[in-house]
Amino acid sequence: MALKETLVIVKVGGKIVEEPDTLERLLTDFKAIPGKKILVHGGGRSATAMAARLGIESKMVDGRRITDAQMLDVVTMVYGGLVNKNIVAKLQARGLNAIGLSGTDCNTMLSDKRPAGQVDYGFVGDPKQVNAPFLSSLLEQDIVPVLAPLTHDGKGQLLNTNADTIAGETAKALAPYFKVTLIYCFEKPGVMLDENDDNSVIPYLSYYDFPRLVEDGTISGGMIPKIQNAFNALNAGVASVLITKASSLDTLTGTTIAL
Amino acid sequence: MALKETLVIVKVGGKIVEEPDTLERLLTDFKAIPGKKILVHGGGRSATAMAARLGIESKMVDGRRITDAQMLDVVTMVYGGLVNKNIVAKLQARGLNAIGLSGTDCNTMLSDKRPAGQVDYGFVGDPKQVNAPFLSSLLEQDIVPVLAPLTHDGKGQLLNTNADTIAGETAKALAPYFKVTLIYCFEKPGVMLDENDDNSVIPYLSYYDFPRLVEDGTISGGMIPKIQNAFNALNAGVASVLITKASSLDTLTGTTIAL
Repeated sequence: MALKETLVIVKVGGKIVEEPDTLERLLTDFKAIPGKKILVHGGGRSATAMAARLGIESKMVDGRRITDAQMLDVVTMVYGGLVNKNIVAKLQARGLNAIGLSGTDCNTMLSDKRPAGQVDYGFVGDPKQVNAPFLSSLLEQDIVPVLAPLTHDGKGQLLNTNADTIAGETAKALAPYFKVTLIYCFEKPGVMLDENDDNSVIPYLSYYDFPRLVEDGTISGGMIPKIQNAFNALNAGVASVLITKASSLDTLTGTTIAL
Repeated sequence: MALKETLVIVKVGGKIVEEPDTLERLLTDFKAIPGKKILVHGGGRSATAMAARLGIESKMVDGRRITDAQMLDVVTMVYGGLVNKNIVAKLQARGLNAIGLSGTDCNTMLSDKRPAGQVDYGFVGDPKQVNAPFLSSLLEQDIVPVLAPLTHDGKGQLLNTNADTIAGETAKALAPYFKVTLIYCFEKPGVMLDENDDNSVIPYLSYYDFPRLVEDGTISGGMIPKIQNAFNALNAGVASVLITKASSLDTLTGTTIAL
């Protein structure tokens, strides 16, 4: 069997892609990453701001957006149109042959609408199938997919979908085709022993260390599910997961998560 | 040389795609067209409505939108996101493997920003190059491109672009690959001898008849440049051009334009 080619999947949140200066730097650093690559972006802050301008209230539960029909239109416009197409145009200007995709384009990512439980999140999708052959064929043509956090149910319904999840599911689905490195960019430079000290980044976090660091409170809150997702990706064949901040993309320093 | 396969390019304006009932019927009729196909859509009415909700005034000169930076964001959201992704999701639900594309995605259509003359149209693009090999490769995989009326200048700038022009340029660029039929859907059932009589459609309009029908006033106003564009497409190798209304897509009746 031939050695698998490297694929880097970078997920960046809304704040980075919504401010012109940080976006330009991100895209320059992203372009410098050698080989095959995919960019997955958020856009939540822009969606919230656009909703407010339209007189639509943003409702969040545990950091997740409640997506009614009006809010779905807003995120479809902002994620699928404004943020995605501007990123693609800026990557094209840098000589990368980017293509913007939502999950409905070529059925890139099919989801189930999340059933209403204690909370009804509305038009929110949980991914169940990635069109890995299509994404793989784009990558083989040196095309760079730029994925917006939108999926569909295959029955005509668009669904708002968490960008971290999209990045993780894409990484898992492409693991049989490529040696995948999944990079999550957050606001902090990695998983830190002391959240107020940027020099306290844990360079290497294993499955062995994780329970202890949760127990002693070093890792808490929203970081716990993120790291669990990273371990899930590794268990599904992803080669490595890096947690870093966008401005460290040029050096690829941060916390490497491993089994 | 092998016979070229048929490709049908359908352009529909904003009104059809912006009303749920007419959109559903259009997409069902579009799906029924056999063989390779491309859908090009407008969205001007939705853009005007969204701009109004955001307190942005729509300025038109001779039916063309003045696109300042704020309006460019609106059309990028509405055309590239809201309208395009909803059409793609609805085509996927009908079993067509659609992909939504703006001109920046895979550099599908490169434009020059229109120079400011007597009127400064702002961020408006005049197409100069179509990525025909890419579109052709999608069609060969039975993928159905859905083109939003947005292009880019290759330097990072998105540009608002007339959907009729996008359809015409796409048809011309793909003429070497396919036997292309270009269908323009308007509100009237074709070019009519009497604009108040839907039964007066001219079934066949040749280059020979055209000057006479302009001179006697049968063809006037905005229809003149549309028909001139059709002749341009035919001169560039497009096999046929049909002018019809969206609700006649199932029968493909209307005015066929020929050299």
